[in-house]
Amino acid sequence: MFESVYVDLHKFEQHEPWFVAINPEGQVPVLNHNGVIITHTTVINEYLEDVFPEIPLRPRDPVGAARMRYWNKFVDEHVMNYVSMHGWHRMVGIIARKIESGEFEKLMERIPLPDQRKKWRTARSGFSDADLAHATEKILYAVDKVERQLQRTRWLAGDDYTLADINFYSMCGMMVERMFPEMQIAKRCPRLVEWRERVTARPGMATALAQEDRTEPGLRTWSGHAR
Amino acid sequence: MFESVYVDLHKFEQHEPWFVAINPEGQVPVLNHNGVIITHTTVINEYLEDVFPEIPLRPRDPVGAARMRYWNKFVDEHVMNYVSMHGWHRMVGIIARKIESGEFEKLMERIPLPDQRKKWRTARSGFSDADLAHATEKILYAVDKVERQLQRTRWLAGDDYTLADINFYSMCGMMVERMFPEMQIAKRCPRLVEWRERVTARPGMATALAQEDRTEPGLRTWSGHAR
Repeated sequence: MFESVYVDLHKFEQHEPWFVAINPEGQVPVLNHNGVIITHTTVINEYLEDVFPEIPLRPRDPVGAARMRYWNKFVDEHVMNYVSMHGWHRMVGIIARKIESGEFEKLMERIPLPDQRKKWRTARSGFSDADLAHATEKILYAVDKVERQLQRTRWLAGDDYTLADINFYSMCGMMVERMFPEMQIAKRCPRLVEWRERVTARPGMATALAQEDRTEPGLRTWSGHAR
Repeated sequence: MFESVYVDLHKFEQHEPWFVAINPEGQVPVLNHNGVIITHTTVINEYLEDVFPEIPLRPRDPVGAARMRYWNKFVDEHVMNYVSMHGWHRMVGIIARKIESGEFEKLMERIPLPDQRKKWRTARSGFSDADLAHATEKILYAVDKVERQLQRTRWLAGDDYTLADINFYSMCGMMVERMFPEMQIAKRCPRLVEWRERVTARPGMATALAQEDRTEPGLRTWSGHAR
């Protein structure tokens, strides 16, 4: 059993003193396991495998585990930040521009990580076309790479569903079609779409997706067009 | 026992068909363990822990392993590429500029990863002052963060020497003073310097460091000034 605690990013709760006392980096997600604090998604996920190995999402054979880590690393280093840039440009920018500039500067001072401060400022002014185009290129490279892998194996790291599938799904696969209709993912990457449906249908994922969407309705703009 | 095979980066052997057949990304290092190919340093190192757990360099307790992975991730994502940029600017640039431009274009075509092709081109023309300054900022942030950690614990991930120490040492700690004398590391980060001496003195590291330096003498320019 676990208790989920919602940190309201719309209200900058992740930079409030109570939260920074828990994670000095002022970032979600955070795992508190019997008072031990673990941060960063892939680190948390490996920790959960170490502590709760009963239903493995990390292959028990070393080669499978290495394949999983290869993909986790690829997603963390070559996918996450590029999808995130488009997300920030479209969604976080709306939040950042709503704030009066004196107030905005006060909020910036509270952000512990210099990279995050920079990202908030850039979200406010808008990311450059060159940066967004580069991000798009990286995402196209990633979906093509995933498509090639799924022509060879059922899941990213081989025969088994692993943390690597979860990582790519939540950082890109789940929403890439909605975010980038111009990529024509269904045509370009049919295996990826099939795979995404298989991930979505899994009981654990279905439970996660059934949770309340707390994003402000005005910000639920995958494609960049507010509804 | 292992056999070390030297891949001569001066001669672009990493992009030759025989090597790309082993690692389609055309990158070193590569581990071949009984015919299984594993790539990427941190992935290789965790694999070695899984297969040869006798002398652990990954803590056996899950919290220690998570601390180690936190630091490995930090080094891979926030240190490695920034030290590497200065290294490429100073050293790889010398190689890249020695090549006649027709020949250079042929070499570029052989590089499998688009990011690497871009890096070679940039090394040839020189990285921008803004990019180099940003890289320096990231390195300063990293050495200060490591210094703070070493005020609290003997090694990066806690009481034990782990893969995280090896990773930071080889990507930054070993050569940061020689590469950036202007940072005055000895004054700024005394714990880091002490820690570096402790790592250097370890038998495994001493063996590694005693290996022949195959870098062309004209490229052994840590500070950017050829000798």
